This record gives sequence, structure tokens and C-alpha cells, in this order.
Amino acid sequence: MYINDDTIVAVSTPHGMGGIAVVRVSGPQAVDTVARRWQGAPLGTMASHTAHLGRIVDSQGQLLDQVVLTIFRAPHSFTGEDVIEISCHGSMWIQQQVVVTLIDAGCRAATGGEFTQRAFAAGKMDLSQAEAVADLIASQSRASHRVAINQMRGVFSRKLAELRQQLLQFVSLIELELDFSEEDVQFADRGRLVDLARHIDSVISGLAQSYSSGNAIKNGLPVAIIGATNAGKSTLLNALLHDDRALVSDIQGTTRDVIEDTITLGGTLFRFIDTAGLREAKDEIESMGIERSYKKLDEAQLVLWVVDTTAPVESIDDFYRQLAPRFEGKHVITVLNKIDCADPAQLQRLQRTLPNTSLISAKNGDGIDGLQQHIVAAAGLPQIDDNALIVTNARHYEALTRARAAIERSIQGLSDGLSGDLVSQDIRECMYYLGQITGEITTDDILGEIFSHFCIGK
Amino acid sequence: MYINDDTIVAVSTPHGMGGIAVVRVSGPQAVDTVARRWQGAPLGTMASHTAHLGRIVDSQGQLLDQVVLTIFRAPHSFTGEDVIEISCHGSMWIQQQVVVTLIDAGCRAATGGEFTQRAFAAGKMDLSQAEAVADLIASQSRASHRVAINQMRGVFSRKLAELRQQLLQFVSLIELELDFSEEDVQFADRGRLVDLARHIDSVISGLAQSYSSGNAIKNGLPVAIIGATNAGKSTLLNALLHDDRALVSDIQGTTRDVIEDTITLGGTLFRFIDTAGLREAKDEIESMGIERSYKKLDEAQLVLWVVDTTAPVESIDDFYRQLAPRFEGKHVITVLNKIDCADPAQLQRLQRTLPNTSLISAKNGDGIDGLQQHIVAAAGLPQIDDNALIVTNARHYEALTRARAAIERSIQGLSDGLSGDLVSQDIRECMYYLGQITGEITTDDILGEIFSHFCIGK
Repeated sequence: MYINDDTIVAVSTPHGMGGIAVVRVSGPQAVDTVARRWQGAPLGTMASHTAHLGRIVDSQGQLLDQVVLTIFRAPHSFTGEDVIEISCHGSMWIQQQVVVTLIDAGCRAATGGEFTQRAFAAGKMDLSQAEAVADLIASQSRASHRVAINQMRGVFSRKLAELRQQLLQFVSLIELELDFSEEDVQFADRGRLVDLARHIDSVISGLAQSYSSGNAIKNGLPVAIIGATNAGKSTLLNALLHDDRALVSDIQGTTRDVIEDTITLGGTLFRFIDTAGLREAKDEIESMGIERSYKKLDEAQLVLWVVDTTAPVESIDDFYRQLAPRFEGKHVITVLNKIDCADPAQLQRLQRTLPNTSLISAKNGDGIDGLQQHIVAAAGLPQIDDNALIVTNARHYEALTRARAAIERSIQGLSDGLSGDLVSQDIRECMYYLGQITGEITTDDILGEIFSHFCIGK
Repeated sequence: MYINDDTIVAVSTPHGMGGIAVVRVSGPQAVDTVARRWQGAPLGTMASHTAHLGRIVDSQGQLLDQVVLTIFRAPHSFTGEDVIEISCHGSMWIQQQVVVTLIDAGCRAATGGEFTQRAFAAGKMDLSQAEAVADLIASQSRASHRVAINQMRGVFSRKLAELRQQLLQFVSLIELELDFSEEDVQFADRGRLVDLARHIDSVISGLAQSYSSGNAIKNGLPVAIIGATNAGKSTLLNALLHDDRALVSDIQGTTRDVIEDTITLGGTLFRFIDTAGLREAKDEIESMGIERSYKKLDEAQLVLWVVDTTAPVESIDDFYRQLAPRFEGKHVITVLNKIDCADPAQLQRLQRTLPNTSLISAKNGDGIDGLQQHIVAAAGLPQIDDNALIVTNARHYEALTRARAAIERSIQGLSDGLSGDLVSQDIRECMYYLGQITGEITTDDILGEIFSHFCIGK
């Protein structure tokens, strides 16, 4: 455990005005520094994990705020250091002044993620768990939250430790042979070694493959809504948004304010991609606009094609011929809109000829629930339980891909009858990349890069 | 002390994403309700003012978050009830889910200011102190913060209690006489009574008069920047803003993000009023625009008239003749701009002929510090020390005005030799209005009105 000799301070609660805000101080001088600005029970003799009403004053001894101070003594704190949390009134001015006066008393303003970095340095969590803290804070849906919390709880870390254990056993068997190489002993049964390596390979591959779902869970599954200009795309988007809004309208704190046009359905975040209305291009400029819509369509994994069922059937057929090549490799739902006004015979025909249809009236809300279920099913994302292990981090994915290449080289080496020291080198490389994920193997550059993306105060 | 039979919950930290957020629960069932969603040390036996690491789960027992829970047992809490504060990770999703699961477990979503209203109901603070909590949270400058914190600490309440005590003494002397009225006794020396009433009147008048400063301190002192179109008004505003920004740029949490064109100078908030450039109107529409600028000028207490010192001296003189009548009753600072390019003789002449001049170059920043000091001095707001008593609340001002009218009627009554029971009625009315401020006399309507303006979670 390395020791920080400075003491850091930051507002840990969201930026803005609120009922209360929490200023957090961590480091070897936390108690002494805060004591210089504290009027209340003596900090020196306070028991850990106790809360105290008192006052924070400025350098002239003038009252800044009445606060509740909670003390967490090393090593029983988030960072493993002495931590003091000051719960003050949530005016921006007070938050700023409390931080300023503590800096003035000897603290340093914390950089992004610095509290979590100290928790990592103190061995309170490994690197993948620390990264999960940031993911947890950013989580916008049940699914992304669950993946992050599993990772924070160490589900991923334990799986990696298990792999590492198996690799160690593997490498030690081979390296033991090397020590006795002059005697041409073969301690390890080559067949058993290959089986073990294949097992490790399949676990690593499974983790790496989970990244495509993981990425969609974390950042939202991209969905394109396309259709002719008057097919009802905006009405549909509003109908989907509205339904979601109604669910959460009573509760403070939803993601809608932050990112527009994302909807949580069945616990998964969907990111709707706006496309301009598609129609027969009349001139070059219009056809450029349509080309842009097609490009966005290409980025989406899931496509909602909105069809005006009251439009002439020929124009719908034309449109379908035009779109069909673009639909390849995507999940497409054909949303038959305006069913309340459509001719029943035409509706039946469209249901028969178009792929994967869902009948709705965006205007009066008919069929929206069914469409939502349809979207969730089409997304095909895995259900996330308490032990689900899904990789959501590009850094982890990269390390897993390299670890996988190394373990596969070792399998090849074993079947090619390569010498033990060469095989051993591949296995050690595999361990090295897995160790990067948990932070056993790391550099200051990597740490700096990771924690700089955290918010300040965490 | 009246008892609430329901238990309320809300996010108390600012709305948004952050490192941590605090969910607050208060009420007779706080412990039992949270226990249904808590995995950790048993809540029933926890000592008050202790913090505990544990988990919040949803109704299915699935982990929502690892949290730190702090318990405050009645009556030793902010509301006087059992209070539990849950410090969770600051994702919007988690904040929302923790509140939802606690509502599901039996809490009710708190309305704005409901925690503070409970503190008031429990006798933890009087009404003026409760209102000061809201003012404190909204405070944007050193001055408004200090006024609010003094009021929250009870400086105002103690002054009112003192007045009430004096009024009680006054009224009891008069009413004692009434009991013995048949015997025509006069216990109280009329001269002494008038002195006492005059003293009370002067204290109440002083408080009422402080409201004009108080309002400026709380909401910002309105300053109009006017001048010809190319005189450099925006450059000046930017120079003032920039300087302020530099001071606070390192610290999270300044007011600049919330309200544009407000600047804190010398601890006081100044609210700059944008006015269109003034020049000779060429047509009717332009003259309407200029009329609007004049209207805004009329709302300001302080006017910065920006003069382009390189402009022809006749146009400046013309302008001054046009403006002078508008300046009456206002503090005007004539800001002589572009001094780096001005003719020294013309500059001297302008300094001599125009009122209250300040020399600057907005472009290169010369003279901005001096101008700031000039603005602060012109504002003429009182210095606020730890015992300063300034009324900032319109409701208090109204009550003080009525109390003052009542006490003045009693003085008149005494000198007119009115009978004791009539004088006594005026004094009781004075006490009634003072009692409205502290909430000794109040109605549910008034309480509802006051607390509805609080933020949720406080």
C-alpha cells in the first residue's frame, strides 16, 4: 500500500444547487486540516463512523455554515485513508467557500477520480472494480447498472483471479519441467495441458464476445427510425417517449433531461437515431440528404421502418425494394402505422408481404406496448442476473483479445510440440494481459488515463 | 409539537449525476421502512449519529447499491424525527431507484421544503429561521449568505423575541390598570410608556427600512449599463465578468452558470441589465427600442454610463443633456472608456464636466479594478457582520410595516389620552404581526405558501 502525503478535498455531490451538498476530504492530514476550520466536538477523539453537528468557519473565524460532519478513520474508509465528509447547505456559494477554506487550511483540490484512485492504491478494490465505480455513476438503465454493480462487487475480478490461478498452475507445471530439462522428465500430461488451455481460451473468448452486448448495454442500443416523410416517425418517437416519461414523472432524477431521444425499455437503454424523411429524391441536394439518412441507418443495429398504411400500396412496395438491401444483417421491425385509418385488405396484404410487422396507431397509442416488447425482443440482449459477467469496457476488451491470442498461441505451441520455455512465455503473456485488467500490472500512464475520466469528488 | 404519522423520502443533493448523492428519509417509520430494503448491521440497535456500510436492495432483494447509511434518532435530528441518510453512488438511475424502492417499502415522496417544515413543526427552529434555510441555499454572494446565516442562527428571532418581551411588559402594565379601572389607578407612567413605544417603533422602523438594502443583497443590485452603440458596453461587461471568472475558475460551483450577467463584487451580487445601444432615433421603431432602454434604466438603482472618449465632444454633450433628467435619484458612474486612444485635453474636459467619472480602457483592462471599487462604493450597501440584522424577505417586510402602523397608532392613542383598552388593542396587534414573522401566529395556508418554494429534499 503506497502512502499519499497530501490531503485532497472536493464536492462529491452533483454540481448545482440543492438541499444539501457533501464536501469530502481524504488523506493523512484530513483530521488536522478540517480541525482548523471546525467548531464543534474535538475531531481528535471522535470515534470512526460517527456524525457530529457543528460549524465550518473561514480563515477569519467567520461562520460559513452549520454542517453535519462524518468521520471515517483509516483504514475503514472508502479510500483507506482518514476521510471526513462535510454535509453542508447546498448553495453553490457555500459549497465553493467550504472547499476554498479547506484548501486554504492545507488541502489540495482533488482531481477527477482521485478518491477512487486512492481506494485502488490502498488495495480497497482492483482496477476493474474502480472502473466499475465510474460506470455505476454513469449508468442510465437497469441493465447497465446491473453490469456495473456486478463488476464493482468483484464478479469479474473473481473470474479473472480464477483464470490466473489456472494459468499459474499451467505455467508452473511446464516450468517445473524446465528445471529438470536435462533429465527429459515430463511432469505434465500434454493432453491434459491442452484441455486446460482450451478451457481457459473458451472462458476468455466468451468474455471478449460479451463485449458487443456489453457495449450496447452501457452506451445504449442504436435504433434508427426510418420511413417516408409523413409516415409518423415523430409521433411514434413521442408515443414511445411519453410512455416512458409517465413511468418516472413523479421521481426526481431521470436521464431524459441529459440525453434526448434515449428511451429505457425493459431495463435497456435504446438510443434513437434521427433520420430525415426518406422519399424519392427530386434533385441532387435532396438525394444527398437521403444518403445521410442511409448512413445513419447503417450505424444502427435495430431499424424501425415506419409505414403509412394509408399510402398507395405501390409506393410502399417501391420503398421496400429500395430499402431491402440496406436491411441485411440488421434486426428490422416494420411498424405499420395509422391502422385506425387503413383499409383492412391492404393492411392484411402488408402484414403478409413485409418483414416482422408490428401494428400501431402512433396517434392514439394503439399497439405501442406491443411494439415496445417487440423492440426489446429484437434487441436480443442477455438477461443480467446477480452473477452475470459482461464486458463493457473497451480497455478490458482489448486486454482480453490479446490474452486470447496468447493462450491460442500456447495451444498451437503444445500441439506443435514446441519446447516448454516457448509455451511458458505465451502463458505468461496471457497472464500479463489479464493482470492489466485488474491492475496488478499497470503503469502510471494507464492509471492517469483511466481516472482522468472520472468526475471530480469520486 | 405535532406528530407526522407518515415517513417521507427525497434526494437531498442537487439534481444530476455526481460522485455521490444523499437520499434522506424522515418520520416515525424511517427505521422500519429502510430496514425492509437494507442489508447490513441491524438498524434497530444502531446508536444515533453513526454511519454504516451496507447495501440497499429492491423489493425482489436484488442489489441496488452499496451505500453508507447514517442514522439520526429522534429528537436529535434536523427534523426532530428519526432520520436516515443514505449516501449512494450518484447515478441518476440509482438515485431514482433508491427513492422508488423506499416509496414501495412505505415512504411517501417528500414535497418541497417538507423536511424543514417538519423541523419547524417540531420546534427545532422558528419560521424566520426556516425561511433562512431556503435563502441560505439560494445565496449567491458573501453578503446574501451572511444575511441568511445570521437569520438562520436566530439573530432576527432574538431581536423579535426582545421586542415581543417589551411589548408584553407594555401591554401588561396597561391591562393591569384596566383590572383596577373602577379605582382609577394609574400604575404606568404615561411618559415612560410613550418612551417605550417610541423605542419599539424605532427598532421596527429600522428593520423595515433595512429591506431595501436586504432586497438588493438577496436578489442582486440592479445596474444598467447604457451608452451609445459603439461606446464599448459589451467589452466593459466582459472585462468585469472576466475578472470575476478568473477568481473562481478553479473551484467547482459558481453562480455564473445559472444566471448570466450577474457579477459578485466586494461580496455583493450585481445584476447587470442589458440595454440596447442608445443613439439618435432615425425612425419610430428605433425610438421605441430606445424607449425600452430608458425603461430599463428607470428600474436600475445604479447606472454605468459608458462614454466613448474618442467621439466628438458635441455628441457627448448632446447625449448628456438627453440623459440628465433620467439620472435623477440614481447613483450614476460616468465610465470614460477608450482612454488609451483619447485626446488628453478632451479627456480632462470630460472629467470636469461629467458627473462621477471613472477612467478605463475596457479593451486592455486599464482602470477596471478602480471601476469595481467605484461600483461597490456607489452601491452603498451596509457591511454585514456576524450580528447584522437585515430584512430580505417580502413577507417579513409586510408584517413589520403592519406592526409599525399598529405601534404608531398606540403612540398616538397614548398622547391623545385614549383609554387603556384601546391602546392595548393596538399593542396586541403589533405583537400579532411580529408573531407572524416567527410563526407563533400562523395558518396552514401561510405555511403551505412558504414551504412550497423550497427545493425538494430540504
